Parts: sequence; C-alpha cells; structure tokens
Amino acid sequence: MSLIVTGSIGIDCVETPTGQVDNVLGGAGSYFAAAARFFGPVRLVAAVGEDFPDELDGQLKSLGVDLEGLEKRVGSKTFRWSGKYHENMNRRDTTAVELNVLIEALPPVPESYRDSEFIFLAVTSPQNQLELLETFPKRKLVMADTIELYLQTERDAFMEVVQRVDGLVINDDEAMMFTGETDAVKAAEAMLAMGLKFVVVKKGEHGVLLRHQDGWAALPAFPQAKLVDPTGAGDTFAGGMMAHLAATGDMSLNTLKQALAYGTVVASYTIEAFSLDRLTSITRDDIDGRYRQYREMLAIE
Amino acid sequence: MSLIVTGSIGIDCVETPTGQVDNVLGGAGSYFAAAARFFGPVRLVAAVGEDFPDELDGQLKSLGVDLEGLEKRVGSKTFRWSGKYHENMNRRDTTAVELNVLIEALPPVPESYRDSEFIFLAVTSPQNQLELLETFPKRKLVMADTIELYLQTERDAFMEVVQRVDGLVINDDEAMMFTGETDAVKAAEAMLAMGLKFVVVKKGEHGVLLRHQDGWAALPAFPQAKLVDPTGAGDTFAGGMMAHLAATGDMSLNTLKQALAYGTVVASYTIEAFSLDRLTSITRDDIDGRYRQYREMLAIE
Repeated sequence: MSLIVTGSIGIDCVETPTGQVDNVLGGAGSYFAAAARFFGPVRLVAAVGEDFPDELDGQLKSLGVDLEGLEKRVGSKTFRWSGKYHENMNRRDTTAVELNVLIEALPPVPESYRDSEFIFLAVTSPQNQLELLETFPKRKLVMADTIELYLQTERDAFMEVVQRVDGLVINDDEAMMFTGETDAVKAAEAMLAMGLKFVVVKKGEHGVLLRHQDGWAALPAFPQAKLVDPTGAGDTFAGGMMAHLAATGDMSLNTLKQALAYGTVVASYTIEAFSLDRLTSITRDDIDGRYRQYREMLAIE
Repeated sequence: MSLIVTGSIGIDCVETPTGQVDNVLGGAGSYFAAAARFFGPVRLVAAVGEDFPDELDGQLKSLGVDLEGLEKRVGSKTFRWSGKYHENMNRRDTTAVELNVLIEALPPVPESYRDSEFIFLAVTSPQNQLELLETFPKRKLVMADTIELYLQTERDAFMEVVQRVDGLVINDDEAMMFTGETDAVKAAEAMLAMGLKFVVVKKGEHGVLLRHQDGWAALPAFPQAKLVDPTGAGDTFAGGMMAHLAATGDMSLNTLKQALAYGTVVASYTIEAFSLDRLTSITRDDIDGRYRQYREMLAIE
C-alpha cells in the first residue's frame, strides 16, 4: 500500500573513529526512503535549497523513489549537519548545524500524494507534523519520530501528535525524558497509556523495545555488522519497519515484530559505510538473507 | 550431570527506590544455587563465619541444595555487603563492604564433590579460581565470572583462568575494560579469540550477548518483570544458564541459547523482590511458563 515519508534531506559532514566524509547525502528523509524502497514504492515530501549539489541530486534520483514531492526552493539553502562520533559510536557531538530550509514553510504535498495510506512523519516540529498529517485524509497508519528539542519546547503540541498517530518511534533517552520514567520499559508503558497503538523505543547498540497494545517485543541489534558510521541507523530502521507494515497492510503484534526485524537488518547495513553507500550497494536478496540469519539467531529451538 | 558452584555467601543490606532490607541472605553462591536448584542437584562450596545468623542458615538449608561444602568457620566473620541503587537501577553504589572470610583460606572441597563435571567459579581472585579448578579432575565444562578489581590487579592470573576454562560470563563494562574495546560486540569477539569456547556478556537491563565458537546470540531482558531489587540478577542468570547446560550435558550454540533464555527468565524473577524472596516462592512450572512466554516473544513468525 502507498507509503509516504515527510522528512529532511541534508548535506552531512561526518567524522567517526574509522574515517571522515564531507558534503555527503544525509537527512532522515533520504535515509528512510533509501531503506523503505526495498519493500515497495515510497513517496518523499521534502525541500532542498538551490545550493543542493547535482551530485547529491543524482544520488537521490538513483534511489528510484517518487520525488514528485521534492521541492527545490529558489532563494533557500539546504539543511546541513556536521557531527563527530566518540570512540564508542553510541555517542556523538553535533559540531555544526544550519537548519536553513527546514525552518521555512513546509514543502507542498502534491495532489497525487493525497491518497497515501501509510504515513511516516520524520523529525520536524510537532506543529508541522500535525499540519502534514491533515494532508492525508486516507491515512491508515501514521507513525512519528521526534527529538529532545521538541519534547522540551513544544510538549503540548507533541502530546497532540501522540493523540493523532498510531505509533511512535523514539530514542530511549527521549522516551525517558518525555515520560519522566527511568528505564525504557516503564517509559514505553507510559507512552502506550497515552492512547497509542504501539511504541517503538530505539536503544542504539542495544536494539529496540516494542510496547504494542497486544504485548511486548524486544529485539537486539544485529551483532555481526561492521560499524563504520551509525548516522541514519535510526531512520533506516524506521524505513525498513514502516515499509514492511505498508507492504503487509496491517499492524498486528506479529507483523510489527517482523517489521522491527526488517528495520534492524536494514539498519545493520546502513552502519557498514558512510552516508547511503552501503544501502545503495545491496539488494533485496541481501536483506532477505540477513533477515533469515537474524531470525535464526533469535529463535530458540 | 553434577553441577557445583564455588562462591560467596553474604549478609546484605540493600536500598532501592522501592524499599530497603537489612541483614538478608545474599552473595553470588547463594543466588546461583537458589536459581540452579530448579534444574537439578547443586553442590555449593562456600564459607561463612560463626556470626552467620540461624535464620539465614535456615533459609540456605531450605533451598534443598547440597551443603556438604559449606564451611562454618570458627573465629571468622561472614562476608557483608551494603549497597544503594540509583533511580535507574542499572547503577548502584557500594556503601559498605566487609570481605571477612572471603579473604581467608579457601573453604575445603569435600571428597564427595571431586567428581563434579559442571563447574561454576563465581567471583573470587583468579588465583583462587585456578586453585579451585584443580580440585575437579573430572570437569567437563567450566565457567568463570570476575569483577573489575581482579582485571586491574591480577590481570595475568585472570588470563590464565581464561586459558583454563570453557566459557566466561562477564559484565559489559568489565569485558570492555579487559579487552580495551569500546563496545560489547568487539569485546566478546576479542575474548573468544583468547581461546574460549564461548563468552557471555551481561548488559543488565539490555540483556545478554553470546559469542560462541559457532556463532552469535543476543537476548533481551524479559520486559514484563516488576523491578524491585536487581541484586543477584547476574548470579541467578548464571545459575539458570549453567544448570540448564548441566542438565542437558552439552555446550552447543543452540543449547547455550536455551540456557541464556532460562537464565534470563530466572533472573527476571529474582529482581521482583529483595534477596531470595521471589526465587523461594516460585516453582519450576512458573519458570517453564515464563520461558514459553519469553520464547514466544522472541520468535518471529
């Protein structure tokens, strides 16, 4: 079924203990779409500035996702992010950020996108998320992500997002901050009680925790991945997860578990190279192969 | 097959955000044995002082484990530990500790224990672990645990332990410190390369990671447990794990995975009350029921 992501496209500079890259394709929208496209069609709503390099534009086009909703805004500049990871790559510092087009008006949603049913609202302000949500009257499943900034500065608006979506995907630190709980399990429980159908708490190298209205799941990260750059792991996790839900058309506990596993597997490829490099060198067969391997690792005979 | 644990018996005072208890039964040997007894016979080698209270002695006896190797040493005092947990109970401070009998001579191993095949060397100095190891000429599978102190002060002796045992069970912080690696996956890989058959890295609320010579496994903590007091979680995890290995008599990757799951389930009960209170109120049926629930949670259809 029709899947859409609304999210950022960025120009990233990233330094990790294994190397460094400058001016590469980044942003939650790019990562999400690059992961989701393995599972079916993906529509992208996003804006870049007139400075967006032809090379990155070409990379985006080569993903094969629907870019009708990609606005190249004259007179604006593209979102830029620079970050440096610690020796343990679960931690990083943002060394520079220019929001640019991200804090201007939202990109327009094309008429042809209005029938989208599976909606992923990547990180932007809760007000923007609410406005975007309204542009999809045929929505069947909506998930949103957020960051600490908005939980601190726009808590009420985010609470309204929580009332209007089916599921959240959120980092453990943010989940605990938002709920005032001191561990991820209690935080997930508290968020479910706010009226969600399910909550996915991302724990980085420790995997993910799912609190679904019908039960729990907890999945570890895929241990064999070669960690080069964790940037985009969370967004590609969300992309794989959401795209599997869209492909199957339901949100039962068991489908969610499959979706979490696909998300985990796609994210395990993301981190094996900088930017989208690894995601653009694999095939669906690679994903399915590692998925089988991961399922087998989890199964206890 | 015959399972033995060599480890401490302690008198604990514990404070957590949910409550406080004073002078309760603790120590790695007690916790390990209380968990392992559900799976088959357990022998315990340990020493207490003449101050060991009758009430705790009665509790220990009521576990139904073989206490021929329990020495009540005249003129000595029992190991005591006091600790206070933080709001997030993954962290704690030791507020008082008296090693007492633990730093005296090792308790003698009874002649009737010398045919033990499955040996768990709970935390003591590596020199003690090596000496204990030698008293079991029929050993088939030996696992050891350790703490940061011995990795810092007796690294060479611990390296010798590593050469002589089949598997290690170790906390993530200690695994990283020991290997100089910055994440648990790399630390487990590095330890396996030291010649072990398998390494189990404990990550507290984030579950466990297994590096086995035939592959990997990663298991989350059981999310539904009601956390009251985490003391003994790691020791009862080890008890459930090792006792399942002893009951099945092998150490294949799949048996290890079952063993990790049993360990996780037993530990999930341990933390639901102070001291051994929960472990002495459940039955093997409870464990099997939660084990099925846990397996089902992990399985992806």
